[in-house]
Amino acid sequence: MAQKPGIPKGTRDFSPGEVAKRNYIISVIRTNFELFGFRPIETPSFENSSTLMGKYGEEGDRLIFKILNSGDFLKKVEDSLYEQKDSMQLTGKISEKALRYDLTVPFARYVVQHQNEIDFPFKRYQIQPVWRADRPQKGRFREFYQCDADVVGSQSLWQEVEFVQLYDTVFTALGLQGVTIKMNNRKVLSGIAEVIGEKDKLIDFTVALDKLDKIGEDGVKKEMLEKGISQSALTKVQPLFRFEGTTGEKLDRLAELLDTSEEGSKGVEELRFICNTIEETGLQTAVLDLDVTLARGLNYYTGAIFEVSAPGVAMGSIGGGGRYDDLTGIFGLKGISGVGISFGLDRIYLVLEELGLFPETVTSSSRALFINFGEAEALYSVRALQVLRKEGIKAELYPDNAKMKKQMQYADKRGIPFTVLVGEEEMSKGHYTLKNMQTGEQKAVSLAELTATLAEQI
Amino acid sequence: MAQKPGIPKGTRDFSPGEVAKRNYIISVIRTNFELFGFRPIETPSFENSSTLMGKYGEEGDRLIFKILNSGDFLKKVEDSLYEQKDSMQLTGKISEKALRYDLTVPFARYVVQHQNEIDFPFKRYQIQPVWRADRPQKGRFREFYQCDADVVGSQSLWQEVEFVQLYDTVFTALGLQGVTIKMNNRKVLSGIAEVIGEKDKLIDFTVALDKLDKIGEDGVKKEMLEKGISQSALTKVQPLFRFEGTTGEKLDRLAELLDTSEEGSKGVEELRFICNTIEETGLQTAVLDLDVTLARGLNYYTGAIFEVSAPGVAMGSIGGGGRYDDLTGIFGLKGISGVGISFGLDRIYLVLEELGLFPETVTSSSRALFINFGEAEALYSVRALQVLRKEGIKAELYPDNAKMKKQMQYADKRGIPFTVLVGEEEMSKGHYTLKNMQTGEQKAVSLAELTATLAEQI
Repeated sequence: MAQKPGIPKGTRDFSPGEVAKRNYIISVIRTNFELFGFRPIETPSFENSSTLMGKYGEEGDRLIFKILNSGDFLKKVEDSLYEQKDSMQLTGKISEKALRYDLTVPFARYVVQHQNEIDFPFKRYQIQPVWRADRPQKGRFREFYQCDADVVGSQSLWQEVEFVQLYDTVFTALGLQGVTIKMNNRKVLSGIAEVIGEKDKLIDFTVALDKLDKIGEDGVKKEMLEKGISQSALTKVQPLFRFEGTTGEKLDRLAELLDTSEEGSKGVEELRFICNTIEETGLQTAVLDLDVTLARGLNYYTGAIFEVSAPGVAMGSIGGGGRYDDLTGIFGLKGISGVGISFGLDRIYLVLEELGLFPETVTSSSRALFINFGEAEALYSVRALQVLRKEGIKAELYPDNAKMKKQMQYADKRGIPFTVLVGEEEMSKGHYTLKNMQTGEQKAVSLAELTATLAEQI
Repeated sequence: MAQKPGIPKGTRDFSPGEVAKRNYIISVIRTNFELFGFRPIETPSFENSSTLMGKYGEEGDRLIFKILNSGDFLKKVEDSLYEQKDSMQLTGKISEKALRYDLTVPFARYVVQHQNEIDFPFKRYQIQPVWRADRPQKGRFREFYQCDADVVGSQSLWQEVEFVQLYDTVFTALGLQGVTIKMNNRKVLSGIAEVIGEKDKLIDFTVALDKLDKIGEDGVKKEMLEKGISQSALTKVQPLFRFEGTTGEKLDRLAELLDTSEEGSKGVEELRFICNTIEETGLQTAVLDLDVTLARGLNYYTGAIFEVSAPGVAMGSIGGGGRYDDLTGIFGLKGISGVGISFGLDRIYLVLEELGLFPETVTSSSRALFINFGEAEALYSVRALQVLRKEGIKAELYPDNAKMKKQMQYADKRGIPFTVLVGEEEMSKGHYTLKNMQTGEQKAVSLAELTATLAEQI
């Protein structure tokens, strides 16, 4: 019996229209990565399990897809271990490879493995799928693309400046004007922890502060007190609850607040340099916004933290990143500082779709369909097709001498804007009848005119 | 202790130069797929095991990478089965997903699953990686890309004609002039089997005939006799041993030989139509060659069979394909004829490399590196970078105020053709000093001149 076909949950088929739109986004990102001097690398879809395991915490380890060893994978498993029937224990014995969980750890592995070929600072980008055995839900998939750009081997803050500009340039090029690039600095967060006298409360503090918009100042303070943050600490960080004004004013207030913390003051100085420089150079359409509640990947970042949100759409972040000081340490190469950003392809897709920002020309449809009226007519058409394609014009011949209506429907359903009709009269005169599928207008044209008309509206 | 990083055998890291070259080939293939009216789809990297297993023969099943179920995968395995410690048996219980082995079966699954959305004939292309647990060896990898174009839902031979032209167009565009497109037809092979009176000897016959170049007519005949093919059969197919002359002459001889076979005669007619039409329309640089020994994927193809080889390089086939009449039958949708071709990315890469055919401009390097002499100079440089990038010119600032020599080396190692030097004098005059890294020549230029110089040589 035939199988009923389907795909694993959390995965997706992409139809031609969807692939065309995704490739459009990827192409804009890629082009701008290269304009900013980033160069592409690619790593294998699966890594040795030892490369990935233990790098994403316990939860991460569980979400990594493991690949079963080939052949008689049970042969080498000792009976004593096998008899325990313990999934966790057995995994290590029957699986040596695992699917990439993100692009960051494979990149760190790449840098260490190829360190003798790499001339630092190394500016690389990587656009590849990753896999996570997460529970699938709306907008969360088990296979999805990551689009990352990172620089390793330089502590220069000019990189942070360039990443802000890169975000601005990409989103402006995508027609998504006015994104907000939220920026914070891990050193500032550490400084706050110092100031409130309880370093171990940093996460509680940040999580609570992040709710300011939703539950208001009183709600946040209540939660902080419940988490054991002292009243005197709250008094000290009072300025954070009214964190408004110009960027300069915000920075001044922060500097004052963190005056006693060396690390905090360093963070403020870093933020100030980036903000000042961006003010000097300007942004095309994006807005850079200081946000001391921003803390994504807190344990990971050591300097700048970025997160981008789209204007006027409730979508969560469409990009994020930051600086990390010891990416490659896990693989034995110490002291390599890095900073990077990521673009969230799936969410950007949804935003562009919702705001109607995909250009009409993104579709991968042909410009013209030649109607097939029989062998001689098809041959005449194929000769024209050769000329059109040399000019870079997408065009095709309907393969069968089918009913006219069916052929016209084919063009219609694919959004092909023109059909070309060739009969005996056209062949004898060396002409083509060009039909505009939208207006229904038909006219006889020469091959040169045909080429010009199909080319002009691309 | 830090782990020594490595990657699984049979997989590869691709460095910037390699990715740039691979993307160049893919981009040429993709552009031409679209010029010929093919539209892209993408399917998930892993499919349900039931979709893949049993579709590639016993050997294929073994080479499919299976993904271990997540969580406590042993929980549902019955003790009685578990106790047998049989890898084959256990696999089905602890693994439900598997990595794509090729693009054809997922495409068939896609067509059946989406049949109500698809308007046939459906011309799709797909460029994605596939995975096989093959023993790695030179030129054979466990992860590699396939680049396929197929049409399903039409029996028209115009598709075969278009595929021959597509091969010609792609390889010509890649600078690989004069590839040989070998063509055969499964019906012709069946006809030969009929003529020699032993349908079951078809494969033995074809395998032996294929060695004509290597072991000569006598050697081939000896092997055929050993395989149980009769002397009278050999006499009958004698014309195949001297299968030379023009395409027309070959076709005539084949027609005569297969005169008594209905299927064989049909095959000859199909070949004749394609050859005649290609002669009418011409090819840019490729050569179409009738080869009755060509039999790739014999059990799979039902009509035309194609294989492409590069000129002057011993590399094996760099592309292949053919017509199959029941692709989607395995998933319950009968009677959908298809025809398709594939490009072998890895081998095309090796051929272009060996023949020095990659354009110099393929590299993803920046056009210019701005030397970093300090904060004010860097800011001045970043302003210029904004202008250059808006013009589509790849350029970057060295992130650190490092020693001049180090910065120059950075440009050198990446093949960046120009450096831009900005000091106090340049800033006061609004100039830039542009250095040609190859000639060493330096000159002071305005921003407009800088832009023009960097743009002109792209």
